[in-house]
Amino acid sequence: MSETLTIKDAKAIIENQIEELAKRNKEPEWVTKLRYKGLEAFETAPYSDPVLPNLLDFIAKAEEVPISEIRSLEDLPPEMKALLDRLGISEVEQKYIAGLAVQSDTGVIYNEFLKQWEKKGLIMTSMEEAVKRFPIVKEHFMKLFSPGENKLTAYHTAVWNGGVFLYVKEGLKVPFPLHLFFLIQESSLAQAPHIVILAEKNSEVHLIEGCTSPVLVKHSLHLDMTEAYLHEGASVKLSVLQNWPEYVHTRPMTRAKIGKNAQFINTTVGLGSGKSNIANPKYWVDEGGYVELNGILLGQKDFYVDLGGEMYLQGKGARGINASKAVIMDESTVITRGIIHAQAPKTKGHISCDALLMSDKAKMETYPGLVSRVDDAELSHEAAIGKIKEEELFYLMSRGLSEEEATQLIVRGFLEPLLKDIPMEFVVEIRKIIELAVSGGM
Amino acid sequence: MSETLTIKDAKAIIENQIEELAKRNKEPEWVTKLRYKGLEAFETAPYSDPVLPNLLDFIAKAEEVPISEIRSLEDLPPEMKALLDRLGISEVEQKYIAGLAVQSDTGVIYNEFLKQWEKKGLIMTSMEEAVKRFPIVKEHFMKLFSPGENKLTAYHTAVWNGGVFLYVKEGLKVPFPLHLFFLIQESSLAQAPHIVILAEKNSEVHLIEGCTSPVLVKHSLHLDMTEAYLHEGASVKLSVLQNWPEYVHTRPMTRAKIGKNAQFINTTVGLGSGKSNIANPKYWVDEGGYVELNGILLGQKDFYVDLGGEMYLQGKGARGINASKAVIMDESTVITRGIIHAQAPKTKGHISCDALLMSDKAKMETYPGLVSRVDDAELSHEAAIGKIKEEELFYLMSRGLSEEEATQLIVRGFLEPLLKDIPMEFVVEIRKIIELAVSGGM
Repeated sequence: MSETLTIKDAKAIIENQIEELAKRNKEPEWVTKLRYKGLEAFETAPYSDPVLPNLLDFIAKAEEVPISEIRSLEDLPPEMKALLDRLGISEVEQKYIAGLAVQSDTGVIYNEFLKQWEKKGLIMTSMEEAVKRFPIVKEHFMKLFSPGENKLTAYHTAVWNGGVFLYVKEGLKVPFPLHLFFLIQESSLAQAPHIVILAEKNSEVHLIEGCTSPVLVKHSLHLDMTEAYLHEGASVKLSVLQNWPEYVHTRPMTRAKIGKNAQFINTTVGLGSGKSNIANPKYWVDEGGYVELNGILLGQKDFYVDLGGEMYLQGKGARGINASKAVIMDESTVITRGIIHAQAPKTKGHISCDALLMSDKAKMETYPGLVSRVDDAELSHEAAIGKIKEEELFYLMSRGLSEEEATQLIVRGFLEPLLKDIPMEFVVEIRKIIELAVSGGM
Repeated sequence: MSETLTIKDAKAIIENQIEELAKRNKEPEWVTKLRYKGLEAFETAPYSDPVLPNLLDFIAKAEEVPISEIRSLEDLPPEMKALLDRLGISEVEQKYIAGLAVQSDTGVIYNEFLKQWEKKGLIMTSMEEAVKRFPIVKEHFMKLFSPGENKLTAYHTAVWNGGVFLYVKEGLKVPFPLHLFFLIQESSLAQAPHIVILAEKNSEVHLIEGCTSPVLVKHSLHLDMTEAYLHEGASVKLSVLQNWPEYVHTRPMTRAKIGKNAQFINTTVGLGSGKSNIANPKYWVDEGGYVELNGILLGQKDFYVDLGGEMYLQGKGARGINASKAVIMDESTVITRGIIHAQAPKTKGHISCDALLMSDKAKMETYPGLVSRVDDAELSHEAAIGKIKEEELFYLMSRGLSEEEATQLIVRGFLEPLLKDIPMEFVVEIRKIIELAVSGGM
């Protein structure tokens, strides 16, 4: 069943998936209706993807995968257990078990956060449950995207499954990071979790998403969509750690509305050798608001990341920073294309992009964009693509380090400044991955 | 006759133009054949232009304009006389008369440079004459472009008229700048001069192009194409001064092959309020070669410039700089999109873009691109879009300058560093234009 489908066949498969999802989830009518809007938009929506020309292949395969449901930690597949161990999660878990939700393939498998936090005003629940329990979800679901923007948004709208609703009530400052894991276990699966984050006035929360897949998976598609709404003075950190093997394609779609004096810090750590096209994220920033996008990329093998992001500084004094650092090895490719629009007085925006090319088959492209219509806004960007400076290497080697150790230290020193919002347990794990990668051990 | 033509009508008009040009110029067969290649490519060639959607309108009008020929300085139209005076040319002329060629509409009207320089190995002659006299022209004519790239290249190939061939023999260092003027006098004219520059080994030359149009001209199109070939160690400076009124569209097309250790410095000064789309220039740089693109832009009224440029650093140690400075007033728009490709070891490239927005209806967009596949190349870019700093204004005003004088001084100080290759006579004139513009007098 790996031959390419016709669009008509694909629509039939999507319609089957919608029916199955609607039946299984017993979801409200508006949810199913919205799915059909996605189906309707699918045929005519535009589609262009640099590394995934045949979306229909994935859809063909997605049909074959049974939607599994795992209800407790004991049901975890061994690969995920190993992952959690490898990422230091067993310890994190003990402290932060409240916030741990794990999604395997298309079912949320662990979702046992403490009921007392819900009483305090923190809700983190599977999206399937949220659409039934919380009327406020409907007002925020698929409001920052429209189904017909492209085939991926249309497909996501039709078959989204899993994901979470995260709600933080006014003034609540959640004292621990919440964790969300995505694990792809099956081949050719279009995993399409939908995440809505709603941070009320002056609330604070940090959500950490980890993504990986066991090495045996072939050609999978991870198609998540995140919509974040930050009310006045709210602070949301979203840290996404991706460590996909080479046959996994991710097309994360993230958009956020950042209210007056609110701040949104979105850090993406991309490791491994998967293929990501961070498709058309958008951030709208109101008066005095702040958005910061950090991209930390360590590309190996034929890793491919196309990292975009448009910021609209719409309110007076709104600020935005888009910073990326990439270490590009082997035959991997990194493309960055942040754009900042200054649309109100006293706004400030900065884009920076630094890359170390570690191989002459590695490739870096950067296309920042600045657009200003405002005479007292300040926009700037800077970029540098180069290699590790020989003086630095020689200096460290003269201090007794081997070339490998010196290189590892320089790469760490290059990437770590952007890891400031990542908890230490993860930084330790990321360091191990950097060391393994730079020593050629991965 | 201002309604839009069909493509078939346009082709018939172009064919008429070709026949008329071929007959009038008594040109060699290969020239006319090439024109027909352009005609052939015109129909299917792609076309997209942000501000000039109806190319066919210009073609319709072009038909109506008689191709005039003026043979001596006395025949100069009064507008051009005024321009030459305004640009200080009457003095320059006395010194540099050798290099002065003036093209009015589609005929080269003044082309009287000293015969002794031709004996020394400097040739600067009208392109119509060059294609007949110098076999070497054929080897270099339309070799850096292909007719079918887009409708503008196809159209240019078909109906090019005027322009010059500039040849500098091995080792000759031309001690004075050569001047070339384009003046559009008629409405809706597609002026399409073709320029070939051929700088032999270790030669040196500086060509200054001035472009303007009397204010009465409505909706004209200036579609010049420049092909420059720099052999080993050659040095070519090309300074283009554009001061078009608002209804003139310019679509200059420039490409250069820069040989081993050669250097090409291309400075564009864009004043006035015309619409330019500096369409897809390309620069290929060989081992040890150097290319520098400077853009100095002072946008007024609804000035629109889209300034591109791709550099390919193909030889070891090749270097490229793309620097632009823009002062953007009124409702004008400036877009810059330089791209540097590092394709060989030890190459270095830098893009910078600085802009002052002087009005909240002015617009700046910048999209630099860096592409590297080489692990010991160094690429970087930086940009800043902002306004005149209040501290600087206040400081100058505290020294007794009026706000207007202080602003003029800051704008001059901002733009002038890139004017280093422009002769002082022109810098003086450019200063006057800046002063008039900033004081709202234009």
